[in-house]
Amino acid sequence: MVIVMLPGVQQEMVDAVVRRVETAGGRAFVSRGVSRVIIGLVGDVETFAALDIGGMPGVGQVSRVSTEYKLVSREQHNDRSVVRVRGVPIGPDTVTLIAGPCAVETPEQTLAAARMAQAAGATMLRGGAFKPRTSPYAFQGLGELGLKILADVRQETGLPIVTEVVSAHDVDMVAEYADMLQIGTRNMQNFALLQAIGEAGRPVMLKRGMNATIQEWLMAAEYIAQRGNLEIVLCERGIRTFETATRNTLDVSAVPVVQELSHLPVIVDPSHSGGRRDLVLPLSRAGIVAGADGVIVDVHPQPSLALCDGAQALVHEDLAELADAVADLTVYMGRQPARRRYSSTG
Amino acid sequence: MVIVMLPGVQQEMVDAVVRRVETAGGRAFVSRGVSRVIIGLVGDVETFAALDIGGMPGVGQVSRVSTEYKLVSREQHNDRSVVRVRGVPIGPDTVTLIAGPCAVETPEQTLAAARMAQAAGATMLRGGAFKPRTSPYAFQGLGELGLKILADVRQETGLPIVTEVVSAHDVDMVAEYADMLQIGTRNMQNFALLQAIGEAGRPVMLKRGMNATIQEWLMAAEYIAQRGNLEIVLCERGIRTFETATRNTLDVSAVPVVQELSHLPVIVDPSHSGGRRDLVLPLSRAGIVAGADGVIVDVHPQPSLALCDGAQALVHEDLAELADAVADLTVYMGRQPARRRYSSTG
Amino acid sequence: MVIVMLPGVQQEMVDAVVRRVETAGGRAFVSRGVSRVIIGLVGDVETFAALDIGGMPGVGQVSRVSTEYKLVSREQHNDRSVVRVRGVPIGPDTVTLIAGPCAVETPEQTLAAARMAQAAGATMLRGGAFKPRTSPYAFQGLGELGLKILADVRQETGLPIVTEVVSAHDVDMVAEYADMLQIGTRNMQNFALLQAIGEAGRPVMLKRGMNATIQEWLMAAEYIAQRGNLEIVLCERGIRTFETATRNTLDVSAVPVVQELSHLPVIVDPSHSGGRRDLVLPLSRAGIVAGADGVIVDVHPQPSLALCDGAQALVHEDLAELADAVADLTVYMGRQPARRRYSSTG
Amino acid sequence: MVIVMLPGVQQEMVDAVVRRVETAGGRAFVSRGVSRVIIGLVGDVETFAALDIGGMPGVGQVSRVSTEYKLVSREQHNDRSVVRVRGVPIGPDTVTLIAGPCAVETPEQTLAAARMAQAAGATMLRGGAFKPRTSPYAFQGLGELGLKILADVRQETGLPIVTEVVSAHDVDMVAEYADMLQIGTRNMQNFALLQAIGEAGRPVMLKRGMNATIQEWLMAAEYIAQRGNLEIVLCERGIRTFETATRNTLDVSAVPVVQELSHLPVIVDPSHSGGRRDLVLPLSRAGIVAGADGVIVDVHPQPSLALCDGAQALVHEDLAELADAVADLTVYMGRQPARRRYSSTG
Repeated sequence: MVIVMLPGVQQEMVDAVVRRVETAGGRAFVSRGVSRVIIGLVGDVETFAALDIGGMPGVGQVSRVSTEYKLVSREQHNDRSVVRVRGVPIGPDTVTLIAGPCAVETPEQTLAAARMAQAAGATMLRGGAFKPRTSPYAFQGLGELGLKILADVRQETGLPIVTEVVSAHDVDMVAEYADMLQIGTRNMQNFALLQAIGEAGRPVMLKRGMNATIQEWLMAAEYIAQRGNLEIVLCERGIRTFETATRNTLDVSAVPVVQELSHLPVIVDPSHSGGRRDLVLPLSRAGIVAGADGVIVDVHPQPSLALCDGAQALVHEDLAELADAVADLTVYMGRQPARRRYSSTG
Repeated sequence: MVIVMLPGVQQEMVDAVVRRVETAGGRAFVSRGVSRVIIGLVGDVETFAALDIGGMPGVGQVSRVSTEYKLVSREQHNDRSVVRVRGVPIGPDTVTLIAGPCAVETPEQTLAAARMAQAAGATMLRGGAFKPRTSPYAFQGLGELGLKILADVRQETGLPIVTEVVSAHDVDMVAEYADMLQIGTRNMQNFALLQAIGEAGRPVMLKRGMNATIQEWLMAAEYIAQRGNLEIVLCERGIRTFETATRNTLDVSAVPVVQELSHLPVIVDPSHSGGRRDLVLPLSRAGIVAGADGVIVDVHPQPSLALCDGAQALVHEDLAELADAVADLTVYMGRQPARRRYSSTG
Repeated sequence: MVIVMLPGVQQEMVDAVVRRVETAGGRAFVSRGVSRVIIGLVGDVETFAALDIGGMPGVGQVSRVSTEYKLVSREQHNDRSVVRVRGVPIGPDTVTLIAGPCAVETPEQTLAAARMAQAAGATMLRGGAFKPRTSPYAFQGLGELGLKILADVRQETGLPIVTEVVSAHDVDMVAEYADMLQIGTRNMQNFALLQAIGEAGRPVMLKRGMNATIQEWLMAAEYIAQRGNLEIVLCERGIRTFETATRNTLDVSAVPVVQELSHLPVIVDPSHSGGRRDLVLPLSRAGIVAGADGVIVDVHPQPSLALCDGAQALVHEDLAELADAVADLTVYMGRQPARRRYSSTG
Repeated sequence: MVIVMLPGVQQEMVDAVVRRVETAGGRAFVSRGVSRVIIGLVGDVETFAALDIGGMPGVGQVSRVSTEYKLVSREQHNDRSVVRVRGVPIGPDTVTLIAGPCAVETPEQTLAAARMAQAAGATMLRGGAFKPRTSPYAFQGLGELGLKILADVRQETGLPIVTEVVSAHDVDMVAEYADMLQIGTRNMQNFALLQAIGEAGRPVMLKRGMNATIQEWLMAAEYIAQRGNLEIVLCERGIRTFETATRNTLDVSAVPVVQELSHLPVIVDPSHSGGRRDLVLPLSRAGIVAGADGVIVDVHPQPSLALCDGAQALVHEDLAELADAVADLTVYMGRQPARRRYSSTG
């Protein structure tokens, strides 16, 4: 059972609810979000139903949640949401192309990749300054220096930036530079990070854990939402299966499945799922016609020199074909390209 | 090492090759296909190379196969193949829609489903008379009676038939009625069945094992090809993963991956992979733009009464949308609808 | 709903049940086993309950099956079963060691391997004459010649034989030579083969499909049981996972899980699951203390020359350690070694 | 290529190596551990080989790492390690039993569980104060209050404590109370946490990610080791597979596989892998005879009231059987029970 307290509720009202629940033998866990306080109850539902919590001061809503996620669920929020990143929309009416280098390596490489992104029609720039790598001996990213490069490139190109955060400790620092914070596949259940990002006041891109069910993914999003941030975009990036011909298996079915369960936008990452440059274009097309609200791809001016995941990066010759595919299939799906518009944060 | 003997080779020439290999300490396994004899060698490749087998009478070609499949590989057969089923093509220039009931239940239901298939633009009819079911207490199909119903419906509608064979014993009987023989996911490594079908003189649809790697799938096709039948269409129908929101996970990446490795056509089955009616349309679209040469879907006039997999069958209201999607995306991919044309087998 | 007819039931009684069910709008599927006739009903359970089928002539038992397998379930057969193979028991009071070569290659190699098996304390001999191989160019076994070699070695050593059948067509022939018929992992859902073996009058070893859930495995056993053969031993041989350090992952938990659900004996195959010689001993020990009723291992006099799976075969130096481990842990588990005793089939 | 600098190396020596590498077109990444500095090189190995880095001041060792983990590898550290936790050894000569509640709930419950642990022969206490839960509405642990309860129970019973840390931010605080820090399955690739724990000066228990290959697991351990902490115990806790009868699948093969690759101790967690009380005992036995250096199990005085994972907790009636199994199989494996001895940290 979940109790959503009214905005501006007083501490003593919260305490009263907790006391009543505990007196009845239950347990109450208080989550404080930016905009509201939620109390989760553990114990016997019938007992709780008899407590008339709905009638207590400060209580907004009492729900027997049928799903284990609630704020991100479509049950009580039927319209699909639009998340805006510096005025660039990601949502049901558009297809947003996000492109850039897997990792920020140098100012020159990053700017060149951003120009490639624009050539492909992208209206957002991706690029990693903090890279979670399986091996401790692999390139771990440039850190804050990388963020500065990204900010310079944004200045130059006008493209808003999405970049990964790998530690709760870094959230505030990354949020100073980035327009959207990314949570990577290995951190999807790093709950401390989810909670810190829930309070950071920035849109979030939450990648699916490579081993996570859709339900677990939505519950990870709920951790962010619970802290008051509903500006979440989900990103399907491939799941781990027995197949070895591709790095991971793009679960394209996840797009319509999630859209039925949640109001949050969903995009696909054809670069990291396949791990192969030749699959990026067919998987981008597949994602769009399955209903994805956007696509995020790796591009690199010289993939053979890339410090990270060069094998999957698109090169100059691929850009026109990608641009055409995104443009044509966006129209086919009855949507519009996601261009920057007026925005209070822009 | 693989030795392909010349057409019409004499038995004594084959025996001579086997003797020379065995004298050198190796082993030779003779596979007789309809059109040619292939000898597979097991042992030390360097030793074999010194035997000058290429110079022996009746020997056509000696290859050190780099892949473990050869006849279905694109290495030596760069053009992608077209398989024709009673004149209906499946191949790189077309997108072929195949539709019908999961199981043949009655003449009325089968004819109604065939009319639905035509309304959706299908030019081939699917329908199971032999159903391999996990539980021995589930409906196992009507057997030969079901095949007769299919043949009657073909007479009525003109649609060629693809239907599953579950036992080597039934191959000849099914081949009397069917235009194309299907091998189901649970039988992908039923090698006796693969070999029997390799000799049946009918085009084959080989579904991917739900647990099979792409390499294993191609080797299963090689079993059929080795018996002289290269009229094989591969069908991606979802693989088993940890995700439970869908019955299986459509591996849409498999389409371009297979097309790079093999010259055989590849289609997708969005009905069995997702197991949900609402996913059929988005997954059909995704398959086509990933490059699939066709789509096979379940339709049923009254899914709630279906004896098999009713939850995934399309109904009347879905047909127009499917027809439009297939038609539009076929054009988008620079292909043509797969209509029946003049054919020597038609 | 499942109806078990009385032994010796007349055809007209069966027909009467089918008619009554169909008149009520249901469907009835008749399975004829060697010893009894079972009728599976598909349709509305409440409707069937009103038909008083239990009172009709020839009807033995009417069950609403709660599980989808029934004859192999422990629900109605609480004592765990013993299967005897030429007098060698496999069941809850013993630990049976089965050993031998993966494939029969020559009389000398097979006899040497059988002597190795005996040295390790084995009381049954394994050995493949028909080998289902992923690649059509790999060694497929010696066929009937291999069976003859096995029979000769049985004559020489007294060890009963278990060997694989890969096709329904071969069942009778293999049953002439073998004491126990094995169904391999790739054929676990080859239902035609399961049914043929259900009628063969020989004990069966049913390997788990490498991708099969425990429930699917038990339903595969039910296919055999339905034809009147309950002399089934289940064999856990590893499942397919993402881990690549081992060929498959031995699911040792499956042993106690299956023993709670089914009365059938369960053994483990540490050779094929790990695919590595160094894992055979620790996994054999693990299987026994998890409660397995036996262990089946590969041995080979010269693994480097083996035509099949040499990397996992135990060699002479391993035998004493295996013998000790099996002997000691059998005692630890309060069981006895499985020696041959008086048997009506011996 | 990896360069290990000599202990006490000066910064200018490190800088010189980095310069030489970069002048040659490579990239050098400096990792500072507590006890040494390691420089990882990215670029062309042949070029690096020509730079004579081995002859530069301050350079200890230059290795072309064949594995991607090095400090935890057995290649250069052939003897298997012993990790001591307040004098309790975990290593190749002993079998260490660790037991306790999944979550610390109250002082009474924790003390009762610790007494149960001792009754089962455990010499270490487990118990979670920070619980990473899939749902944000589930009980998340008592936090620092839980740690205080654990410390009190240690005072009372003498059992050293292992408890989970879920955030780099909490490492120092948890290390004040705990004798061993646990990294849970969801955080195995939370690299910021791994690095923070590498500097915490406490032994670590690193659970395998439920989706992690053995290689990835060892690389996660390498992250800790790289910061100067080699007091790492690996814990196999089940991997995610398609099987649903158990929560996860205990990969018992991982025990001998890891012991061949790494010198670190390995224990098994039969409670979390199976998720079922009835599997704990058979899986504990299986783990020990597969060679595990210890077992960690959940116990709870009243599982039906547990706030976390009650279904898998052992109860009073199970303890004698567990104690006997651990004692007997420890002897069988030629090991000793892991009792506390003189220790500088004790």
